[in-house]
Amino acid sequence: MKQIAILVTLFFVATIALNAQELKSPNGKLVMTFSMQDNGVPTYMLTYNNKAVIKQSTLGLELKDDEKSLLNDFKVVTTNTSTYSNTWQPVWGEQKEILNNYNELAVILKQNETNRKMTLRFRLFNDGLGFRYEFPEQTELVYFVIKEERTQFAMAGNHTAFWLPGDYDSQEYDYTESKLSEIRGLFDTAVTHNASQEQFSKTGVQTSLMMKSDDGLYINLHEAALINYSCMHLELDDENLIFESHLTPDAQGNKGYLQAPCTSPWRTVMVSSGAREILASKLTLNLNEPCAIEDTSWIKPVKYMGVWWEMITGKSSWAYTDDLPAVQLGITDYTKVKPNGKHAANNENVKRYIDFASEHGFDGLLVEGWNEGWEDWFGKSKDYVFDFVTPYPDFDVEELHAYAKSKNVTMIMHHETSGSTRNYERHMDKAYQFMKDNGYDAVKSGYVGNILPRGERHYGQWAVNHYQYAIEKAADYQIMVNAHEAVRPTGVCRTYPNLIGNESARGTEFQAFGGSKPNHVTVLPFTRLIGGPMDYTPGIFEMDISKLNPNNNSHVNSTIANQLALYVTMYSPLQMAADLPENYQRFMDAFQFIKDVAVDWDKSIYLEAEPGQYITVARKEKGGDSWFVGNVNGMNTRTSSIKLNFLDKDKKYKATIYADAKDAHYKTNPQAYKISTKKVTHKSKLALQSVPGGGYAISITEIK
Amino acid sequence: MKQIAILVTLFFVATIALNAQELKSPNGKLVMTFSMQDNGVPTYMLTYNNKAVIKQSTLGLELKDDEKSLLNDFKVVTTNTSTYSNTWQPVWGEQKEILNNYNELAVILKQNETNRKMTLRFRLFNDGLGFRYEFPEQTELVYFVIKEERTQFAMAGNHTAFWLPGDYDSQEYDYTESKLSEIRGLFDTAVTHNASQEQFSKTGVQTSLMMKSDDGLYINLHEAALINYSCMHLELDDENLIFESHLTPDAQGNKGYLQAPCTSPWRTVMVSSGAREILASKLTLNLNEPCAIEDTSWIKPVKYMGVWWEMITGKSSWAYTDDLPAVQLGITDYTKVKPNGKHAANNENVKRYIDFASEHGFDGLLVEGWNEGWEDWFGKSKDYVFDFVTPYPDFDVEELHAYAKSKNVTMIMHHETSGSTRNYERHMDKAYQFMKDNGYDAVKSGYVGNILPRGERHYGQWAVNHYQYAIEKAADYQIMVNAHEAVRPTGVCRTYPNLIGNESARGTEFQAFGGSKPNHVTVLPFTRLIGGPMDYTPGIFEMDISKLNPNNNSHVNSTIANQLALYVTMYSPLQMAADLPENYQRFMDAFQFIKDVAVDWDKSIYLEAEPGQYITVARKEKGGDSWFVGNVNGMNTRTSSIKLNFLDKDKKYKATIYADAKDAHYKTNPQAYKISTKKVTHKSKLALQSVPGGGYAISITEIK
Repeated sequence: MKQIAILVTLFFVATIALNAQELKSPNGKLVMTFSMQDNGVPTYMLTYNNKAVIKQSTLGLELKDDEKSLLNDFKVVTTNTSTYSNTWQPVWGEQKEILNNYNELAVILKQNETNRKMTLRFRLFNDGLGFRYEFPEQTELVYFVIKEERTQFAMAGNHTAFWLPGDYDSQEYDYTESKLSEIRGLFDTAVTHNASQEQFSKTGVQTSLMMKSDDGLYINLHEAALINYSCMHLELDDENLIFESHLTPDAQGNKGYLQAPCTSPWRTVMVSSGAREILASKLTLNLNEPCAIEDTSWIKPVKYMGVWWEMITGKSSWAYTDDLPAVQLGITDYTKVKPNGKHAANNENVKRYIDFASEHGFDGLLVEGWNEGWEDWFGKSKDYVFDFVTPYPDFDVEELHAYAKSKNVTMIMHHETSGSTRNYERHMDKAYQFMKDNGYDAVKSGYVGNILPRGERHYGQWAVNHYQYAIEKAADYQIMVNAHEAVRPTGVCRTYPNLIGNESARGTEFQAFGGSKPNHVTVLPFTRLIGGPMDYTPGIFEMDISKLNPNNNSHVNSTIANQLALYVTMYSPLQMAADLPENYQRFMDAFQFIKDVAVDWDKSIYLEAEPGQYITVARKEKGGDSWFVGNVNGMNTRTSSIKLNFLDKDKKYKATIYADAKDAHYKTNPQAYKISTKKVTHKSKLALQSVPGGGYAISITEIK
Repeated sequence: MKQIAILVTLFFVATIALNAQELKSPNGKLVMTFSMQDNGVPTYMLTYNNKAVIKQSTLGLELKDDEKSLLNDFKVVTTNTSTYSNTWQPVWGEQKEILNNYNELAVILKQNETNRKMTLRFRLFNDGLGFRYEFPEQTELVYFVIKEERTQFAMAGNHTAFWLPGDYDSQEYDYTESKLSEIRGLFDTAVTHNASQEQFSKTGVQTSLMMKSDDGLYINLHEAALINYSCMHLELDDENLIFESHLTPDAQGNKGYLQAPCTSPWRTVMVSSGAREILASKLTLNLNEPCAIEDTSWIKPVKYMGVWWEMITGKSSWAYTDDLPAVQLGITDYTKVKPNGKHAANNENVKRYIDFASEHGFDGLLVEGWNEGWEDWFGKSKDYVFDFVTPYPDFDVEELHAYAKSKNVTMIMHHETSGSTRNYERHMDKAYQFMKDNGYDAVKSGYVGNILPRGERHYGQWAVNHYQYAIEKAADYQIMVNAHEAVRPTGVCRTYPNLIGNESARGTEFQAFGGSKPNHVTVLPFTRLIGGPMDYTPGIFEMDISKLNPNNNSHVNSTIANQLALYVTMYSPLQMAADLPENYQRFMDAFQFIKDVAVDWDKSIYLEAEPGQYITVARKEKGGDSWFVGNVNGMNTRTSSIKLNFLDKDKKYKATIYADAKDAHYKTNPQAYKISTKKVTHKSKLALQSVPGGGYAISITEIK
């Protein structure tokens, strides 16, 4: 009896052990508990220092034409635990070295009725949890269609959230800061107009979602490694404060076509008692596959200018002519039409920009509107909208390439696709080859307007697959990609570091489309940048847009000091000085910071941060001794007190501080700044006042 | 007053003249009358020898998000008439020379409220009418979306029709012969299973639609030059016997995205008092643009065999292995899986076919199942289903190409796409280049299964655009295309003669999938072949499929003589001897006809024809003196009496006649035939008996 009792006890314990299992982070503060509900539903929960972060939440997927689905009736076959610790070097980044350290729990499940196997893999880092679904090779589950993924994230409280309305096609909204319970009431106001947009629920929000609990926990929900899957939004059950995954549907309303063996992306929950750790977290990158490109020597961070802002403000035009109701590529003879006289991408103007960029040490010049087709480039659902290789009559590709080269400037290509993905793919090889033949090594791509094939969405599996195809093919051609309006990034730049940027959020251009909230840039690093760098295109010095275009009364809701700070706070290996040369020429002393600031880093230290309020970060340039500090400020005047104890102990430095003038204000006095210099050491402290929508930028160079 | 009266009268006459206008065919028998209804709706009607063919029918288009649409409120601005007469030479065809002769009426319309311009262009030939919508360049109408085209074809009687159920994805149905009023009741029975299909109405039918009136008029409705538009079906108002155009919708239910200036395809109405004139008509080709390919020397008709029928019958397999639940291209290692031993596309078997084909003078050998991916090739909605360049381990591309070349045989490529059009386009350049690198100059493409992007249909504008893209790119590579499951052809092979074939109807393979109606081949030339040749793949000598595959009880509903006749009656520049070499070896005397028959023609004369009952045609080989005659017969034993007065007056000939044996029958005695020879001249007459599902084939060679 005793033996039987022991066996039974052991079995019972083993069953409990199989049915409920704990996973701890390396430092033990985060604890994830996996357990099975009675009806065979897998669940997880997460605590931080014993405080609930994620209450018990169910996992599973609803399948199309499959009543059983992958929701319940599972049993645990076995579990495997492991630990991983490794340091790796990104090709570019905020840090020269990144530690990847986690404890892992893999739960192998089998569905009783169907014998289908599914694995849940959990990785618990010191800064958060990542988990994903895995579908092993098996005869019971091969091809399947997702009707909806049903991953819950049960919140432990009515947190403050910084959210965007959930949308299948656009992320270009201002953030709303509210309690979770208030999302529903504020939803409609949060939805402003866009060229392509589609919401799905009054409590639907996008990722990454930044939250702060009443007791000071910072929680961020996102996904990592979104490849060949549909992009996830979150839908809030605002009665119970439970988020559930809501994938982007295809043209028929289905949410994903999968073939085992395969995996879902990682769903990520970052947790910290401090906001800075969220910004510093490398969890998203760590969950992605290592670099897949063997030779990465051609991938280089870029500081650039562009023939762009003058079109965004409406001062000039992408299009060559206003005389035609429409154009037909290869048929319309542009040499015979009347130029509108406002076409910015012309030889003379471009050379002017090249001269300025060269004089001030910029690596590249982006030119938009260089190619035939801009007359009817969006809103027409046009299939054959661009061919990506035929310039307008006033843009001489070879001549400008040679001119730029002679001035040590590289031309940056622009591929606006107007969402016509099949057309882009049809031309892609020729377009990329054209780039190589003409000295372009980086391309900004765009997807303005509804996606073709019609019915697909920007964030559906079909389009996600397309963006990835463009990135991978670009790598074959040794081309760097900066994709705008594409799906929000999820750390794929670790695997494909030629993806040097995305927009995929409300960028600087919206300051010319009516303006963004002054604290927008204090939110973005907590939300959009969790997945990867953003080509935010900062550096606007003239805030009154009517000065560039009398018909545009938009105002840039930022001070000049805030604009300078963005080069440090808005991490990107691709940094644009977006304004017009003539505007920089009026403030050459401030412009000096943009010229000096690095674009690649050995080290980054987030000194202080609070989402929606302020971010201050210090970064050390890659392979050098200089440091750069940036502070962006929200709505309230604030004194930022920082210690420079990150500086080398045995060095002396000169700090050049670009700060708001005392009476600066993003709206009424944005161009008031003061520049001062100071000798500093690692013992120095600084107290600087930032005004509403203001900030400061500091370059710190060694005094030898 | 008199002057005013005269002016008024002139104006009135002019107005009437503008509002109603007659157009006559060159020989005057067909008269088309255009007129405007009071509410500004354009109409047309057609008579033949003063008999109504099309009663007054309205024209117009319903636009999306446009209440006004292009349906009414038009006025005639002006009309232009012209005549055209020209003879042109096709690269291949039934005739060496084709006369293109028509009278044309162009009606320029303007919509009063919107000022939008639309032109209706009518071309009236001796054998029928073609008309289309044209949208001139204008500011009032640039980009527009078709909700539905509303072209009516008001029938003058309850005709007998030979119809297929209207379907957005398949044409692979048996024909139903019935009165128009009976379509509704017979519709469901007409719909048999297919891998991809979607009907839209119980009175929806496909084109071309063949009809016969009670008073002996033959009428055929179809379209010509379907390019960048959605394929048209016909929906019958069976109360009033009015057909209306029903276009194929896209994933969102819209029917076409157009940009002016542009045109719709031609809608065609063939009319004749004799069935033969329908078959002989070149109206569809004449409405297409002339050949767009400058050098056509590489385009050559082909007689071929194939490693194909043994898979169709289930005797062997396209797939290499049965061991995997699914395959992943580039990941699955085929050298490590267990071959299923039934994979037909292996070196040894292919060489066997090459030997046979070479011995008997065939130009080409098609091999299906040569490439990785067939294990899960359809029904999975698989995106990356084939790469078109990676052979199975047992298929050596280079070795087989060299072997074939040494035997004067060209390998024919196979690109099954499984409907995954984006995947095909991604690989198309590499796939076509692979063909050129390995000595392939023709490709059979397939689109089995639902189209990807999902939600699109086989006959929608998106897919139509894709098929055209494949044809035009193939022309750049000097590759000939034979597209199966693609949209039914509409004469585009005049413009792109590298389109040497389509299936796009129920072909011989269905004889192995349960059988087709024995008179199927007496209908197809009146319906499917109106738009272009069909790769019908005839030449089956073993009708009992269970002899090839004991698990397949299908029966080929045709006699051997009927199979031989198809090489003459089923016009195609691409002719396959589809059966297995071993089956031909059992009937080498009958096989001789297949070896002798030409594939390209100087002249074709339809001797007698009745849709659903019989077709007899005589053709003179291109550049030679031989003639070939073929007769296919329907359900009733029939004596076919023909005069050989097409032969040269001053020549003597030997006719070799392959006819049904007296007791032959498609079901009970299909392999009974008799071969006889006879000396003939232009004065000779023949009377031959064809059994149910039977026929005869005659080769006539000059006795020098």
